[in-house]
Amino acid sequence: MLIVMHHSATSEQIERVIAEIEAMGLKAEPIPGSLRTAIGVLGNQGYVDDTTIRNLPGVRETIHVSKPYKLVSRDFHPQSTLVEVGGAVFGDGHPPVIIAGPCSIESEEQMLMAARQVSAAGAHMLRGGAFKPRTGPHSFQGLGVEGLKYLRQAGNAVGLPVVTEVMRIEQLPVVCEYADMLQIGARNMQNFDLLKEVGKTGYPVLLKRGMSATIEEFLAAAEYILAEGNDRVVLCERGIRTFERATRNTLDLSVVPLIREMSHLPIIVDPSHATGKRALVPIMGKAALVAGAHGLMIEVHPDPARALCDGAQSLDTDGFGALMAELQRLQAVL
Amino acid sequence: MLIVMHHSATSEQIERVIAEIEAMGLKAEPIPGSLRTAIGVLGNQGYVDDTTIRNLPGVRETIHVSKPYKLVSRDFHPQSTLVEVGGAVFGDGHPPVIIAGPCSIESEEQMLMAARQVSAAGAHMLRGGAFKPRTGPHSFQGLGVEGLKYLRQAGNAVGLPVVTEVMRIEQLPVVCEYADMLQIGARNMQNFDLLKEVGKTGYPVLLKRGMSATIEEFLAAAEYILAEGNDRVVLCERGIRTFERATRNTLDLSVVPLIREMSHLPIIVDPSHATGKRALVPIMGKAALVAGAHGLMIEVHPDPARALCDGAQSLDTDGFGALMAELQRLQAVL
Amino acid sequence: MLIVMHHSATSEQIERVIAEIEAMGLKAEPIPGSLRTAIGVLGNQGYVDDTTIRNLPGVRETIHVSKPYKLVSRDFHPQSTLVEVGGAVFGDGHPPVIIAGPCSIESEEQMLMAARQVSAAGAHMLRGGAFKPRTGPHSFQGLGVEGLKYLRQAGNAVGLPVVTEVMRIEQLPVVCEYADMLQIGARNMQNFDLLKEVGKTGYPVLLKRGMSATIEEFLAAAEYILAEGNDRVVLCERGIRTFERATRNTLDLSVVPLIREMSHLPIIVDPSHATGKRALVPIMGKAALVAGAHGLMIEVHPDPARALCDGAQSLDTDGFGALMAELQRLQAVL
Amino acid sequence: MLIVMHHSATSEQIERVIAEIEAMGLKAEPIPGSLRTAIGVLGNQGYVDDTTIRNLPGVRETIHVSKPYKLVSRDFHPQSTLVEVGGAVFGDGHPPVIIAGPCSIESEEQMLMAARQVSAAGAHMLRGGAFKPRTGPHSFQGLGVEGLKYLRQAGNAVGLPVVTEVMRIEQLPVVCEYADMLQIGARNMQNFDLLKEVGKTGYPVLLKRGMSATIEEFLAAAEYILAEGNDRVVLCERGIRTFERATRNTLDLSVVPLIREMSHLPIIVDPSHATGKRALVPIMGKAALVAGAHGLMIEVHPDPARALCDGAQSLDTDGFGALMAELQRLQAVL
Repeated sequence: MLIVMHHSATSEQIERVIAEIEAMGLKAEPIPGSLRTAIGVLGNQGYVDDTTIRNLPGVRETIHVSKPYKLVSRDFHPQSTLVEVGGAVFGDGHPPVIIAGPCSIESEEQMLMAARQVSAAGAHMLRGGAFKPRTGPHSFQGLGVEGLKYLRQAGNAVGLPVVTEVMRIEQLPVVCEYADMLQIGARNMQNFDLLKEVGKTGYPVLLKRGMSATIEEFLAAAEYILAEGNDRVVLCERGIRTFERATRNTLDLSVVPLIREMSHLPIIVDPSHATGKRALVPIMGKAALVAGAHGLMIEVHPDPARALCDGAQSLDTDGFGALMAELQRLQAVL
Repeated sequence: MLIVMHHSATSEQIERVIAEIEAMGLKAEPIPGSLRTAIGVLGNQGYVDDTTIRNLPGVRETIHVSKPYKLVSRDFHPQSTLVEVGGAVFGDGHPPVIIAGPCSIESEEQMLMAARQVSAAGAHMLRGGAFKPRTGPHSFQGLGVEGLKYLRQAGNAVGLPVVTEVMRIEQLPVVCEYADMLQIGARNMQNFDLLKEVGKTGYPVLLKRGMSATIEEFLAAAEYILAEGNDRVVLCERGIRTFERATRNTLDLSVVPLIREMSHLPIIVDPSHATGKRALVPIMGKAALVAGAHGLMIEVHPDPARALCDGAQSLDTDGFGALMAELQRLQAVL
Repeated sequence: MLIVMHHSATSEQIERVIAEIEAMGLKAEPIPGSLRTAIGVLGNQGYVDDTTIRNLPGVRETIHVSKPYKLVSRDFHPQSTLVEVGGAVFGDGHPPVIIAGPCSIESEEQMLMAARQVSAAGAHMLRGGAFKPRTGPHSFQGLGVEGLKYLRQAGNAVGLPVVTEVMRIEQLPVVCEYADMLQIGARNMQNFDLLKEVGKTGYPVLLKRGMSATIEEFLAAAEYILAEGNDRVVLCERGIRTFERATRNTLDLSVVPLIREMSHLPIIVDPSHATGKRALVPIMGKAALVAGAHGLMIEVHPDPARALCDGAQSLDTDGFGALMAELQRLQAVL
Repeated sequence: MLIVMHHSATSEQIERVIAEIEAMGLKAEPIPGSLRTAIGVLGNQGYVDDTTIRNLPGVRETIHVSKPYKLVSRDFHPQSTLVEVGGAVFGDGHPPVIIAGPCSIESEEQMLMAARQVSAAGAHMLRGGAFKPRTGPHSFQGLGVEGLKYLRQAGNAVGLPVVTEVMRIEQLPVVCEYADMLQIGARNMQNFDLLKEVGKTGYPVLLKRGMSATIEEFLAAAEYILAEGNDRVVLCERGIRTFERATRNTLDLSVVPLIREMSHLPIIVDPSHATGKRALVPIMGKAALVAGAHGLMIEVHPDPARALCDGAQSLDTDGFGALMAELQRLQAVL
């Protein structure tokens, strides 16, 4: 950590900062400049909580060299983590895992048909939402536990593992009963209590990036799960909120190689939520694989025009089949 | 609602859209243009769920004239709502309510001292966090229920009502036991299950704007609470995330007059979280009142340099006293 | 165009709007709703300037169905445009054009060496900056006309056409003397006078997206050039400014398929400026081609550690050679 | 400056960095940490160009303690600068300067009427645009030199100094002939050539913040003007681009006290462009003064419904008169 003092900081203020650092068992190294003094902090093992120091008089800013996460960092864990879910493996050296299915589970028939179709096209995991976070209270909110049962049945029928979103802690037991992997949605990325509880289950977790989360916050959120002893975490980029509204969100693909460099955890991409436009999904899905994604999450609906949720971004069966064929060809050169 | 067709939409596609609108019991009014056809939808009572229509072939976009909220809208409820909490009244025609106290409750002594100081300076409500959402798992996470007790005791000692954040549904009973008003933090603004449960309690709610929430999403979140029959909601602007990082967030003060125009709910401002810098808090607090805020939420700590959380943005007792005097002078001309 | 009236608009206000529309020679179609009236505008050829109407009392908002550009739109020009520059062709049906070279021209030797290296690796065009926009006045500002000469010589030596940025109108004659294609930088995307003058030259133009420009503004900027009779415009996505600062900008790759749908103009991607990090450039360059880019612009420097500008995002010769080989393999499956 | 090495940096790489720093005549102070080494740079007079160092192998990042501007910084120039324009004085200790007038000059009569009205209401300076940057080429582009004459005549008629935007270097002589102060628009904030030329004129300059410019970039742009020996610069906050589109831009009022702390230059606020909504202009104008603005720039049009440009954000004469009265009352307590 580096502490930058105000240019008008007095030598008493500088000495108080040094004393404070030493009181924390660390070493302080003043670096007097022509305009202001900076103080280097040595001897820390990882991130230092700078609250006390940042508040001292004369301190202009504190600059962290260490990061607020450690368990997810590749610095301390150079080997890439593999996350296995019902036979599908996310991570380096394995082909990308394609997760497909409808945004929301609407009926037993719809879910089963979707499962049959995505399975036939070659998907490796099945998705479907039973509890839906919706911007307004007057929209369809999901089938709940009944939906979970349909998802499980559909997964069993076609032999695919299933992933579904858990929105609150009370839902955890029932979701764990029916699902193979727990999804944390973008709106819950910083629901820290939920992260901790999900961490305790030991289940594989699909953690979506918050819509305005920096990479650092994204990794710090994953740290909450790993801190509970659960390292079966797959990260998911799904677009961030920017001034550009021509797409639903702005897909931040550069995050994929960057996170692969910074963390040992696998990362996948959800081009459906990122773009919000069916026509862009296959193209951006392919681009994501080229960017190094360990998998994709794709919304597929047997009849998008009749979807109760996000139909505009769902592929139909033919569209998904065509995409799978293209991904196949692409992988050959990756 | 207006439905804009692709310029290449066929007349069959246009007719299918019209049929779909009529099947919903609404009236369709085609507006042929030189380049493309638009279809006006008439006869709806409020917001129309456009999922089915948006997914039909040939549809380019749907444009909503009605909004995804109704209960919070001033259109349907022209009279301003007043929210009363233990004698303090938020809303038109009442002096601004000043909520003050430490970011987090650290000890019985600290809380009591803070309460005495902010009360002496003229604050109307007391705040303090018992459950703290922290970006990383290795930071101080709050005192929990013990903290709630200290907050309640301190409030009683000085005769001020208290507000504190509730982070998860399970905490609701205990928080309701100790608090007069429930705060929903920015990270939980779209935790819809929590919003519903908070709505059911009938308690006054302080709803903070999500860090990347549009005004429309903010009001739709409040709608969740009102939809449960609870209209004791006070909105709180606390800064949004933008490219500018010189301040912790970007305080979006224009939202205050805009929301006062769009909604009947009171709105206050939190300049502490918005700016993240102590020196800016009083200035922006005063600007907020001029912008029409029905109150302020200010972090005050007896010894900011020793604060366990957000000390850099906390006023000390003298600073808060000076601010209260200035607010007094300012109110005389508002 | 659709005009949405306030729910409290009087019938006089509605009639005045209708009269105003008819005075513009257009047809007005009132669409009374349960809450408010909307008025459809018919008969317009393209975008309507809504200034007069938007200002009338009782008008809440105007919603454009047509866009503020016409010449660049695919609606009116379904066939993709090809832009040819010294033998390189940007556009559908042609292999991607790879433009490479240093951020800034530093000396005759550096430019010539860079040219030899990128040409040997298979680049199709040469780039180099003679006039450099730098955030602060105390940084290297470019070699000016001398630099242009080195660029031209280097291009001639290896037989590659050259592109360079023009920053102001006075530079146009000399830049036209030495360059084959004129680059408009991101900071000048809305320098409308410059766009017009560049349009008048008839030279091919490489128009970079402004750092906070929407797609609509980007296309409207290109419209300025086409409005002067010059349709030799290649668009270039180079990242937008968002809250995420881990990369220099956020590369918005989804814009590539979206613009290909909306416009007939070719679009390329600059992964060097977008990411600002050497390690990400090849990966995002490949992803860009998969997303449908008609070319790439890559910063290459013979000795990045000695670059006077943007060395951290420049590939060295080996890195560029490796990228070209990978692009070759990738194209086989596109 | 602090240089942070990769955790895997070799001691050779560290030594090369040290050698490079010393070759620049500076002192290097290695700060070995438990995870990685940082290197403090001592002895620099102001901002160090880090290009060479940032590109060296093993360097993860460079952290600047000094800023890329010096002349505009209060560190080196503690006394606040006053900028005088035809009797109006911008700066500490002087009442706020109110600049008012239409967005664009439309005719001799309109300009004269506007001048009479804003002068009668108490404005201190007159504004009006002769050259208009418009998003699309098919909108009204301003009256040009003829407009400048009308502006000058109107200013003379009512005895107010005038300010108008200069968009390109060629316009400088004629704008200097007619105007008392030169405005640089938001789109030109980083048009560095224009900044330099404007600096050379010695005229007072009104520099608007770019729509996506950080505070640091804003001050660095002003540095270009001061570097030419012209310190008669008034900064102007006019809203930044964010995800929120309910207002035209997001007015970033916190920038006012922050810039007053960081720089000795005066700063004013333009609530008209920031909000884009007439109803918000007076409220945010008042809030801006409370935030410490040294003045306001307000769009006023004799007949906003007939304005050729930005009528929706223009006050009419009565609205402006009412605002001036309120500002008067407000100043009494500031």
